[in-house]
Parts: sequence; structure tokens; C-alpha cells
Amino acid sequence: MSLAKPAHAGYFFGQPVTALAGRLREGSLTSVELTQAALDSIERLNPILNAFVQVDAPVALAQARKADELLAQGVDLGPLHGIPVAVKDNIDTCDYVTTYGSAHFDGFKPERDALCVQRLREAGAVIVGKTLTHEFAYGPTGDRSFQGAARNPWDARCITGGSSAGSAAAVASGMVPLALGTDTGGSIRIPAALCGVVGFKPSFAAVPLEGVFPLSSSLDHVGPIANCVEDARLLFEVLVGRACAPVHNPRPLRVGWITSGSFGPVDTEVDRQVYQAAQQMFGEALQDTAQLQPLAADMKDTLLVLQRAEAFDVHAERMHEAPQLFDQEVRERLELSQEVRGWHYIRAQAGQARLKAAMADVFEHYDFLVSPCVPITATEIDARQIRVGEQDIDVRAAVLSHTSAWNLTGLPAISLPVGQVSGMPVGLQVIGAAGEDDRLLEVMAKLFVRS
Amino acid sequence: MSLAKPAHAGYFFGQPVTALAGRLREGSLTSVELTQAALDSIERLNPILNAFVQVDAPVALAQARKADELLAQGVDLGPLHGIPVAVKDNIDTCDYVTTYGSAHFDGFKPERDALCVQRLREAGAVIVGKTLTHEFAYGPTGDRSFQGAARNPWDARCITGGSSAGSAAAVASGMVPLALGTDTGGSIRIPAALCGVVGFKPSFAAVPLEGVFPLSSSLDHVGPIANCVEDARLLFEVLVGRACAPVHNPRPLRVGWITSGSFGPVDTEVDRQVYQAAQQMFGEALQDTAQLQPLAADMKDTLLVLQRAEAFDVHAERMHEAPQLFDQEVRERLELSQEVRGWHYIRAQAGQARLKAAMADVFEHYDFLVSPCVPITATEIDARQIRVGEQDIDVRAAVLSHTSAWNLTGLPAISLPVGQVSGMPVGLQVIGAAGEDDRLLEVMAKLFVRS
Repeated sequence: MSLAKPAHAGYFFGQPVTALAGRLREGSLTSVELTQAALDSIERLNPILNAFVQVDAPVALAQARKADELLAQGVDLGPLHGIPVAVKDNIDTCDYVTTYGSAHFDGFKPERDALCVQRLREAGAVIVGKTLTHEFAYGPTGDRSFQGAARNPWDARCITGGSSAGSAAAVASGMVPLALGTDTGGSIRIPAALCGVVGFKPSFAAVPLEGVFPLSSSLDHVGPIANCVEDARLLFEVLVGRACAPVHNPRPLRVGWITSGSFGPVDTEVDRQVYQAAQQMFGEALQDTAQLQPLAADMKDTLLVLQRAEAFDVHAERMHEAPQLFDQEVRERLELSQEVRGWHYIRAQAGQARLKAAMADVFEHYDFLVSPCVPITATEIDARQIRVGEQDIDVRAAVLSHTSAWNLTGLPAISLPVGQVSGMPVGLQVIGAAGEDDRLLEVMAKLFVRS
Repeated sequence: MSLAKPAHAGYFFGQPVTALAGRLREGSLTSVELTQAALDSIERLNPILNAFVQVDAPVALAQARKADELLAQGVDLGPLHGIPVAVKDNIDTCDYVTTYGSAHFDGFKPERDALCVQRLREAGAVIVGKTLTHEFAYGPTGDRSFQGAARNPWDARCITGGSSAGSAAAVASGMVPLALGTDTGGSIRIPAALCGVVGFKPSFAAVPLEGVFPLSSSLDHVGPIANCVEDARLLFEVLVGRACAPVHNPRPLRVGWITSGSFGPVDTEVDRQVYQAAQQMFGEALQDTAQLQPLAADMKDTLLVLQRAEAFDVHAERMHEAPQLFDQEVRERLELSQEVRGWHYIRAQAGQARLKAAMADVFEHYDFLVSPCVPITATEIDARQIRVGEQDIDVRAAVLSHTSAWNLTGLPAISLPVGQVSGMPVGLQVIGAAGEDDRLLEVMAKLFVRS
């Protein structure tokens, strides 16, 4: 099988990290060469895709030389040693300017690395630059930031999805083999699905958030974007600071297909593609229904209240002192967010606990739940309305519709690139039980083969 | 020394529980006799004081007979066995109507006892009835409830303070020797101070709140009202389900007098009385200042946001469906409470954590802090403005001013009746470090002698 290839593809397209790691250790490749390949791909593709907002070749190459030296001395820091990695620009790095996608932080240089970045460095990874985030990660389209819109490698007129827009575009186009993203309502999985790569949101609090600019502390997650599940797992292991435990699956899998429409309208072709892919992956394990519709509206409302109140808490002073520095759409969201009442927030906190318990009950009957990750393919940049079936729907609501419930409930969820509709990527989302990150990654690594 | 005696005094005035418990065991007194004495005192005094809102003689006497039978069989459930106790009417009892002080719950009979009531029963106590609470415990004056105002045993024209209004009046007037109260901003300590009894608010979460009608879940506490520290300690031990641990005090006490005025204006005579009492109790251990003024305003604002948002969460449906059933003043407080913003609530939650840490730092230098419990004496019922020194101040703000900080920070605090000003009681408040309830009670039991 040959991989479908995006219109804009660089060195790392279709290159598994394990293969690169093997060549680094054989001596047939150096980290400096890999890093230079990343820099060359970025130089060629970034003017089209706007995935990176900060690149510093000397900084990146210095890290690569260090990695090569260590390997030459016999010091092997693990599978990411010497591998170029991109970091979303809402994650602090002490050697790259970190803007959080906002004019408020134009030129800002954090004093310290985020803890997840520190772990990346300790694993020997080479950080080649920072990738575009929707301003303050507060938007699922990836087309509103201080640095403009990121563009989809499969069609540069289209959005990448967001907010980890640049990280998904960077991996999908092969500028780098791996990237860090963050996910508060779907911000890793949405752009992964729309750009055709693997995006993994771990269980809540599995990866520490120190040094990641907060959007909503009840919902924020850090996780990997990669070409394949194995690579995502390698990066996840670095982020959590431990190896994934091998999982024994004594009995046949029970996989629940979330009844189409439970979380809102789905494009018919997307639905068909994703369902077919799920059937291929899970065979008879796929059970025809896991009816979550009664919980879906509750989950959406609850998340919205938590996210809004927490986001305004983060930005109140900026909204007071310099509202004009926000992108207009982000500012409008924050204006709404200011209005959330305290007692609604308290109820949403209680609701989150209740809904986590309800999902624990559902997972008594299933090992995994599956659904489309995003119910549509990437829309044109700045488009905000789209027709799905016979409904005119809001693009932002649609792209978030199938992912945000798993932020609220803190469950691990992965988006797998399972095909194209009209030449644009489509993602299958697989959701695991709370804390079952290792199991989800192990089983998906076995079952998912990119086509 | 003879005790000053309130204008309205019943059987239990000045009777320590330990003495009663001794006589029960000698056989010179029965629980039925004690309970009948309570019922007689209530019958005589309650028409004046309105301390009890539910009394049921057959229910009370049946408990007393049971207690006597058990003692006769040699089953001794501990020091409260056979002792009449009153329970504030915002605490569920399965055998007495429980109204929470509100027309919304006229005639309501809970299915289950609150956990603290269950513990009282397991300790053999005789629950003689329910005492008046300010409606839903949302007010510090004790003069607004479905059942009207409780009245001060020292002058029935005056408030008891609240919200544990009836419990304080019942103990102060000797209708019962012990009562349960709740305290969200001072609701045990304020009426204890204004009625001249001992009121103890334990550390946050020391006593379980199951079955206590919530006012504000970040701030609510259950605790004892008693004639003396020893009796308060006996009831506290039952509430926490363990004996207090004996405490060793290897070095001289360090007691900080909170600079007068730190928490707002104090009546000069009250201040003088309380300071003198503190000097008598602590002697040279009393250090002249613990400057908390910088924290005081922050604590007050933070508490207000938490309390308002949480109170409205509890009452939103009632405010929507039947606002006319609330007392007008309580309804007005709830209307304000509805407006609290979510992001303010989030900041208040963070503020509470920060202020708890700040107080832990203060207690590095002190064993106890002391201040007046209430900066004025009991005002006339329904009065809402009073002149203190040269300032016109709000009665409700004034009575809460010195107590609510210890709800926010969760520290144990006790009010001790240390004298009178113009014939009305005055309380000294002693605050301990977080979790140091046993130490506070032990030291106060040693040092405090009622005069």
C-alpha cells in the first residue's frame, strides 16, 4: 500500500521515528543531518503552510550537535535522542520566543522551559522551533492568531483545525516527525484529524501542565502529534516520564460505535469512511451502538461553563487593559466568558464529577468507544458556516462536537487518520477508559495500519 | 465568684455536664428527670426567647427512658449518655420536623438523621428539640426566620446573634446544657458571644456535614455550644467520633493579640473588657500585636465571593420558583449572590488556598491568636445600623467582622464569655492553628474560668 501524500510534503513524511532512531545509531545518519532536513523542509514549506512561528537554525543545530556528540560518547538518551521535534507556541521554551499566538506576548521569552519541554530535552530531542497556536489556544480552527492562519498541507486554502494548528501541519507535511500539542476541547485531535496524522490526548493530568499557558485548568491536556501510533507512544512515554506498561488483554475486545449523530450532525461521507475503517480495525469486536446522546448535551454545556469561566480568569487583566490586542473573534469569546455566573460554575464542577462517573459506568461495558473525530473535513480558512446534510451549522461548533466530551471527562482519546473524503483527511477517534492510556496506545499500535 | 445570671434562666444554667453525668451514674438523677427539667424550662422560657422551634415531649422522653434503661443495664455510652441536647434546625433529624428556618420547608420531615445527629444518638444524648436558625443560616443576627426572631436571654429586646440563634439562647438560658450549631461566617461564635456562652467552630472538615443543610460548602462547619469549655469538648469528641488527644506544651505559650481594628471598628468598652480578660488568661504569654490588617480585607472579600456563589447554587431553583417564600432580607442577599461571576469565584478559590497558607505562616510565630469575637454587644432586634465610636456601621457587617476570616481559612476558633458591657455579654475569641482543635480545647479548658 502506498500512502496518500499531501500536496505539500517534506523530508519526514512517512518516516517512522524508530527507523530514524535506528539509522542514527548505525551511524548512517546524524542528528545534525536530520535537523538540517527539518530546517530545509520548513524553509521550503512554511511560507505556504505557516506552521512554524519561530525557527532558529543555530539554536536547533547546536542541540543536534550535542545529541550527536553524546551518541558518539555512547550516551543514549532513548528513542527520541537526536530527533527533531516541534513545540506548540503556547508551551514555554527558554530558547525560543513564546507568544501564545497573541500580540500580548509579542517577543516574549520565558525564563524557564515548561516541564514537558524539559522532559523532551532530557530525552535528547532537538527542538527545531515553535508552531502556530490559535490565539491563546482559544479556538478550534487554527486560523486566528497574531501570526495569521496555519494552512492545511492537503489544500493550503483550508484550515488545519486547531488550536494545535502548526503542530499538526508540521507533522502532516513532514517538516518534523513529531510535535507537542495541547488539547482543551479537541485541540490535538481536531487538527490531527483534519491534517491526516495521529493525535493523542492522554488522560487528564497524566502529563504535567507546568509552563503550559492555561486555557481552562479543568480541561487542559498536553500530548503528542505523530505520523503513527508507535511514534505518538514514544513521545507520550517521554512526557509522562515512564515506559508504557505492557497490557494483557485476556478476553475479546468490546468496542462501542457511538451512534452517529449522538454528538451532533456528521457529514454522510465522513461517517461512512470512519465506520468502515472501524469495522476493518475491530471486526466483530465492534458493537453497533453505545448510546450516549442523553449525556452529550449535558457534557457540552458543562464544558462550556468551565472553559469560559476559567478562560476569563486567565485573561481578565488583559481584557481590561488592552482588549484591542486580542484577535476580534477571541475577544468576542472572552466577552461572553466574562458573563458566566459563579453558581453555574459550581454546578459545572459538580456536573463534571457526575459525568466522569457516568462514563466510568459506560466503560464497564466497553474497552473502547469509537466515533468520527471531526464530523466534517477541513473547511476554507475564515469560513464559519457550513452545510452538513440539510443543516446549516457553525464550523467551530461542528469541529469541536465530537472531541470536547473527552476533555470534560478526562478520558484518553486518539485520532487516527483513516482515509480521505474528496481528497481531505478524515479521522477515527478511539476513546479509552480513564487512566487506560497505555492500553489504548498498545492496542491501537497493533490494530491501526495507515493506508 | 458567683456567675452573672441572665434575666431568663432555666434548670441547666451553670450546670456542668460532667456533674450531671456523675449524678446520673450515682442514681441521684435520671435522664427522664433531666429531660423533664429541660421541657419545663423550655415551656417557661421559650415563649419569651423563641429559642426552640420544635419540641416534642413524648419523643424526647422516650429517648430519655431508653437512656435510663441502658444505664440500669450497665450500658454506658459515655459522658453525654442521658444528657438533653438541642439541635439547630438546619440539621436533619428524622424524628423532628426540620424547616431550615424557612417557609420553603414548612412541616418538612427528613428521612434520615444528619451524621452528626446520628453520632449524638450513638453517644446516648437525648435530643429535646430543634432550635431556631436564621433562615437557611444565611444571616448573623438570628432575627429573620420563618419562625421569627430568637431573643437574647440577657435582654429579650435584643438579638441573640446568629445564625445558630436558638442554640445559643437555649444554652445561655439553661433550657439545655448543650446544643449543636453550624458556623459559615461566625454562626456558632457570634451568638455564643452575644448570649454569654462558649461556642466552638472546629477546623474545616473536622466534623462531617452530611445531613446539614448547606450554606456554603467551602465555609460550613458544625460545632458545639456549651456553658464551659469542658462541655464543648465532650460534645466535640462525640461529633468527631474520637477522644481528644492530650497535648504536651513543652514551651511557654505564644499568644498574639490581633491589633484592635485590624478587622474593623470595635466598641471601646468591648475592646477593653476583652483585652483585660486575655491578659488575665494568658499573662506574659500575651504578645502585644499580630498585625493581620493587610490580610483582613482580602479575607473578607474572598469569603464573600465564595459564600455568595455557593449559596445561590443551593437556592437557585427556590429563587426561581418561589422567591416570595424567602424572608425579604435573605432574598435580597440571594439576589446579590446570583450576580457573582464565575471567574471571580475561581479567583476566590485560589485566594482561599493562598490565605490558608498565609495564616499557616502567621502560626509559625504564635500558638493562638486572640481578639474580640464580636466588636459590639447585642443590638435590638431588627436594628441594622449602629454607632461605634464615631462611625455609623452596619450591624450585620460588624457582628461578622471578627469571625469570618477563620471560616475562610478553616482554623479552629472558640468564643469564651469573658464579661459584660452594660449588662450584655462579651466574648473573647481564641484562634488556633489548622487542625489544632484538641490543643485549643485543652489549653482553654485549663485557662478559662467563667466569672
